[in-house]
Amino acid sequence: MDQQLCLVTLGVRDLGASRRFYVAWLEHDPTLDLDEVVFIQVGHGLLLGLFPASELTTDSGASLERLERGASAPMSLAQTAGSPSEVDRVLARALDAGATLVKPAQDAPAFNGYHCYFADPDDFLWEIAHNPGLRFAPDGRASFGD
Amino acid sequence: MDQQLCLVTLGVRDLGASRRFYVAWLEHDPTLDLDEVVFIQVGHGLLLGLFPASELTTDSGASLERLERGASAPMSLAQTAGSPSEVDRVLARALDAGATLVKPAQDAPAFNGYHCYFADPDDFLWEIAHNPGLRFAPDGRASFGD
Repeated sequence: MDQQLCLVTLGVRDLGASRRFYVAWLEHDPTLDLDEVVFIQVGHGLLLGLFPASELTTDSGASLERLERGASAPMSLAQTAGSPSEVDRVLARALDAGATLVKPAQDAPAFNGYHCYFADPDDFLWEIAHNPGLRFAPDGRASFGD
Repeated sequence: MDQQLCLVTLGVRDLGASRRFYVAWLEHDPTLDLDEVVFIQVGHGLLLGLFPASELTTDSGASLERLERGASAPMSLAQTAGSPSEVDRVLARALDAGATLVKPAQDAPAFNGYHCYFADPDDFLWEIAHNPGLRFAPDGRASFGD
């Protein structure tokens, strides 16, 4: 299993309301709990991200029209990569497989990393990101920070 | 980690096209590969499900209007439960946390199990399912069947 889906991001209308819902239902605190984004562990090596829909538009480079069109809900699926060059390789393979480029691979100052976005055949968004501050322990538990 | 997101289902326009894309990109065969649905391992204990959007409507009991409205893309997030009563408990806790009931807990003849659907505050769909035929091995690998 070289590739793992590790993050499902939902673009939400009201971050506070969504945060309250998931913390109450899952009965544990977020792994990362900021004013602008919330990450909650939801599986082995898997996080649920809550992000204002407008911010997801900004982060992904996808137009609001794309996010609202058909299958393009305000959500994305993500994989982490061990290095910028691995991001490039995974993206290249996706494009070879028929993906549509949404955001070319580039530096991501927000997390001191490197990332890209592409769309699958139904315009579902995938992000491939090298994020030096995100780690998964052997038991799958995620942590952020140095 | 009592609860794990184990399935992300995308309601797709053309199952064959989506299957070809994911098999080509991920470079491994589906765990379950049927004419009407495809499941592909995408992480430790985690599957990506590809399902015609119209069938996702039928399976979830959500109206097409709901699936197309705002955040309600043709996709869902899923957890497995060890028993029907655990489905009931997880659903009750979600409703207590503010979820909207979409499909009351009931037998699911399609997989000889028991399931329900609810919507989170943004109308993202969650399915809670007891599926006796779906197993995750200690290494997270999923299998279907007796």
